[in-house]
Amino acid sequence: MEVLACSRAFYRALESLDLEAMEAVWCHEEWVSCLHPGRESMQGWDEVRASWSNIFHTTEQMRVKVSRARVRVEGDTAWVCCLEDVTCSYEDGFETALLEATNIFVRREGKWRLAHRHPTVLPPPTSDAQTPLIQ
Amino acid sequence: MEVLACSRAFYRALESLDLEAMEAVWCHEEWVSCLHPGRESMQGWDEVRASWSNIFHTTEQMRVKVSRARVRVEGDTAWVCCLEDVTCSYEDGFETALLEATNIFVRREGKWRLAHRHPTVLPPPTSDAQTPLIQ
Repeated sequence: MEVLACSRAFYRALESLDLEAMEAVWCHEEWVSCLHPGRESMQGWDEVRASWSNIFHTTEQMRVKVSRARVRVEGDTAWVCCLEDVTCSYEDGFETALLEATNIFVRREGKWRLAHRHPTVLPPPTSDAQTPLIQ
Repeated sequence: MEVLACSRAFYRALESLDLEAMEAVWCHEEWVSCLHPGRESMQGWDEVRASWSNIFHTTEQMRVKVSRARVRVEGDTAWVCCLEDVTCSYEDGFETALLEATNIFVRREGKWRLAHRHPTVLPPPTSDAQTPLIQ
C-alpha cells in the first residue's frame, strides 16, 4: 500500500538521520504539525523541519522497530497508528523508549506526504514482565 | 465550523459522562480507534464504546477545558489538535492532568463523526512555574 511506503520512508529517514530524506517525506505546507515527546508541538513546515534538523544534529544513531501498524485511508487522507520501539545513542549515552504514534498523511499530486505526527511515550513494562539479565 | 461543533459535542459528552451522547459523536465502524492514557489502544466501535462506558461508570465528575484548538479539514476527513486541561473526581479522590490530543473525524452522510482519538499526558509544569498556594 502506497501510504505504508511513505510511512516506511519516514522511518528510513529517521534511522538514517537524513534531513533531505525527511524533507521528501513531509508535506511542506504552513499548517503541518509535529509533536516530539517532552517538547511544545511544532506547527508549519519551517518549524517542523528545524526540529528534525536539531534532532539529527544531536543524535549519533537511531533505530526504530515498527510493529502493529494499522492503516486507514479516507480519500486523499490516511493515517497510520503503530508502535515504535526506539533506541537513540548520543555523545554521552543512549536511551530506549516504546512509543505509540498516530501519523496522518495527505495525498498531493498523487503522492502521499506526512502532515501530522503525534507520538506518545508508553510507560515501561512492569518489573513482573522483565527477564533478569543474569539468573 | 462543523468539525469544531462535533469536537465540542465530544467534550460535552465527556463532561456529562453521557454514553448516549458519546455514541452520537463517534463513527460506529469496525476500524475506529481510541487511546486512553495508560491503557492498550482500543480498536473497533464495540471496544471503544465499552471503554467509555467503563470510564463513565468509574468517574463521578469530569471537567475539560479545551485550548489552542487547531483544525485541518481535508475533504471528508478532518483533525483537531488541542490541549485538554482535565479534572476527574472519583469515589476516593480526584486527579488533574494536561493532555495534548489529536482527534480525527470523518464525514458520513454529511455529518462529522469522531474516528480516532490519541491523547498524550504532558509532564506537569516545573516547580519554577508554580505559584505557591500560601506565600
